[in-house]
Amino acid sequence: MAKADEKGITTQNEDFSAWYNELVLRAELADRGPVRGTMVIRPYGYRIWELIEAALDQKIKETGHENAYFPLFIPESHLKREAEHIEGFSPELAIVTHAGGHDLDEPIVVRPTSETVIGEMFSKWISSYRDLPLLINQWANVVRWELRPRLFLRTTEFLWQEGHTAHANEADAITELNVATNFYEEISRDIAALPVIIGLKTASERFAGAVRTVSLETLVRDGRAIQSSTTHYLGTNFARAFDISYTSREGNVEYCHTTSWGMSTRMIGTIIMTHGDDKGLILPPKLAPFQIVIVPIGRDEELAKVLVEIRHLETRLHGLGLRVKVDDRDQLSPGFKFNDWELRGVPIRIELGPRDLSTGVATVVDRLTGEKETISLRDLAETMPQRLELFQQALYQRALTFRDDHTRRADSKDELLQAVTTGFVLALHCGDSACERSIKQDSGASARCIPLEGDEETGSCAYCGAPSAYGRRVLFARAY
Amino acid sequence: MAKADEKGITTQNEDFSAWYNELVLRAELADRGPVRGTMVIRPYGYRIWELIEAALDQKIKETGHENAYFPLFIPESHLKREAEHIEGFSPELAIVTHAGGHDLDEPIVVRPTSETVIGEMFSKWISSYRDLPLLINQWANVVRWELRPRLFLRTTEFLWQEGHTAHANEADAITELNVATNFYEEISRDIAALPVIIGLKTASERFAGAVRTVSLETLVRDGRAIQSSTTHYLGTNFARAFDISYTSREGNVEYCHTTSWGMSTRMIGTIIMTHGDDKGLILPPKLAPFQIVIVPIGRDEELAKVLVEIRHLETRLHGLGLRVKVDDRDQLSPGFKFNDWELRGVPIRIELGPRDLSTGVATVVDRLTGEKETISLRDLAETMPQRLELFQQALYQRALTFRDDHTRRADSKDELLQAVTTGFVLALHCGDSACERSIKQDSGASARCIPLEGDEETGSCAYCGAPSAYGRRVLFARAY
Repeated sequence: MAKADEKGITTQNEDFSAWYNELVLRAELADRGPVRGTMVIRPYGYRIWELIEAALDQKIKETGHENAYFPLFIPESHLKREAEHIEGFSPELAIVTHAGGHDLDEPIVVRPTSETVIGEMFSKWISSYRDLPLLINQWANVVRWELRPRLFLRTTEFLWQEGHTAHANEADAITELNVATNFYEEISRDIAALPVIIGLKTASERFAGAVRTVSLETLVRDGRAIQSSTTHYLGTNFARAFDISYTSREGNVEYCHTTSWGMSTRMIGTIIMTHGDDKGLILPPKLAPFQIVIVPIGRDEELAKVLVEIRHLETRLHGLGLRVKVDDRDQLSPGFKFNDWELRGVPIRIELGPRDLSTGVATVVDRLTGEKETISLRDLAETMPQRLELFQQALYQRALTFRDDHTRRADSKDELLQAVTTGFVLALHCGDSACERSIKQDSGASARCIPLEGDEETGSCAYCGAPSAYGRRVLFARAY
Repeated sequence: MAKADEKGITTQNEDFSAWYNELVLRAELADRGPVRGTMVIRPYGYRIWELIEAALDQKIKETGHENAYFPLFIPESHLKREAEHIEGFSPELAIVTHAGGHDLDEPIVVRPTSETVIGEMFSKWISSYRDLPLLINQWANVVRWELRPRLFLRTTEFLWQEGHTAHANEADAITELNVATNFYEEISRDIAALPVIIGLKTASERFAGAVRTVSLETLVRDGRAIQSSTTHYLGTNFARAFDISYTSREGNVEYCHTTSWGMSTRMIGTIIMTHGDDKGLILPPKLAPFQIVIVPIGRDEELAKVLVEIRHLETRLHGLGLRVKVDDRDQLSPGFKFNDWELRGVPIRIELGPRDLSTGVATVVDRLTGEKETISLRDLAETMPQRLELFQQALYQRALTFRDDHTRRADSKDELLQAVTTGFVLALHCGDSACERSIKQDSGASARCIPLEGDEETGSCAYCGAPSAYGRRVLFARAY
């Protein structure tokens, strides 16, 4: 009964990149838009984003931030006020030169990020120490022209939230940075089941215009890193460029210290690549559009009886606050549906047929382990919340174990170049940007971050032998 | 203690337009962005939008629609495929000609609406009658270059949701149109306290590319109309332009019938202009960022005691699910705070001072009526949900009465031209676009819609005397 074109997908080992691209399309997470590099997020993918958004928005609000909305369009001259910022973003900009039937006097940039336009407004809104801290977040789309687009991971337009805050001094701004980093870690770990390594970016990997960038790095199943979110301490760089200043309690005019931080639809790509397997997606229950799928088995009158029982079950599961799909498509076989929902990563499948009905049981299949269990229909619904909670934990543990198994220490150039082909590498580094560039040229790997939790250690740079910097090991990996 | 610049705002009678513009800025709802015509939605205004979004999103989902996200960028050639559509939108387009450091081969349009890009995707996704209906919604920003921008009502970029659906036949599409029109009416009436007149647009006022446009029209306090949302039946126009077709159960290839419908941040402007008065905003409780503000009175130790009681009260009100603000700013007088929260439209104000504390009461002030009541602290919290519900109803009734008082019937040219200076006018019309244009030139008024609920009536066009069309009266008004 399966459609003729329903062949399996390429396996991860055959070609990880093909596996990913096929899966995103086949699971109906996203599609390519008509302009190169743009993405259509389909309902199944968008629902995952809505669930991320709801969980993160709650944390953003609980920590005192307010949502607002700033314009998509930024005068090109504004972007140029912070020199490093324009240099960093210039190659990626999309520029409007014509509007309302006329050529524009000044070109307009489609926002690649909003530090500049928000800086301009902060300058108007802040005058006294009483106005601080100013804690703002926006949910928005941004545009960065991509030469090598990949759905979710690098798209010309993507969705994100960007937090922007202003503070009286460095200490307050750094505290804010920690608050944002903490909730990103919580969303990654508790909601997306992603273990992350958190650390400072080296100077050459920092956000354009930042004094300090903290990134959250995840290892995915082909041994590459994905930076899934970042937080930036911008010092007074943007405050000076946009005159964001305040009169202190003592009557002095001071520059604000600002931060910015963002998490984007990249998260969905990270989740796919961290948890997926050769059968398809595996979604963490907290982000699964459907946590449970129920597949009826049987024909005609028997099927009708099975469906009555299934509707009861569905009602009970809804009553427990669970997201449930009953797959009652009549033109497809149960086997096709099993494969389809495995591909789409639904954590738990319940199968119910006439024989089950007569003995009062159903078959429950776990997407992560593939294990099947026969469970009494009487108890079935009430076991589900705990089952999903255990699934969520097991998924996190599996990713953590995979990451630990693919993290190595390297103390020589050869070890470093070899180890980055399989996963994360911790190595001492001299701190020289030119040395970082050489490593990248030799191996494709970059300094992902200087992990905050690394032990103190000094010695020689694994690559060039010069004295090590940072007082601890640097995390290297090839990255998406 | 009030700031030196805290003078009152211009009154509605002095200059309604100035009243509106000052209020939007002073109430911190929005600010102007650096690119002309763009808008910054500040936290207080954005919270109103979030509350509209939450209520509407729930209705959209309950009626079977799924959210998705489509690209901001559309190839210019796509927009040209539907001839009326490009003709209608062409003067308002913003165009990207340069991206990623290069001039583009084909210009890219920043979406003014998404029928074309969604049509392109529907064409890929729909092949069989089993794929229908396809019910999609997106929350997004759109860009329409505005020559006469006004915050919330006409901005170069605005936020909205746009529903896009595809159906097997006209009847199903019209049913969908009614579903969307119904939930817009419910949001307007039950959430925003806006009475609306629902009707069909005349041919000259229809959406570019639509066969039928239904609009929801609100009368605001200077006697003008605002179209706060619209639904469109697009026939097979976009289906033909983008090849959105399906194989029917009988095996024939048929074009889909599509619809689209949208509600935008205009709603906030409509709410301000419908409910506001010379003291400032009046917000419907269901959309007020703060439904209740509590202002402490007193100094030093007495103030400290008052604040302890206020925190108890705040906790009880939060427990009832209410949105409460305690204004404990220490540098501002109670009188300043009263004016400030009246300006910002908080429905209910609670004042509590040392004398109240000793007698166990608080003063409750209603923003709509200005009435003050002394209420026992013991009962205070529990009376609030009902008080807010009554406030919501009274606000709707006030707007309905105002509208009915400002709706007239006109049966001659003179009556028509006179009546449109004060409000809505119901008049018979010949149905000729040239006559509509003449009315607009003479009076600034346009045909807002042909109300669905109008009684059947025929006769002569009030303006030109020719036989009337439509079989009922047309609603005319000057409009924003």
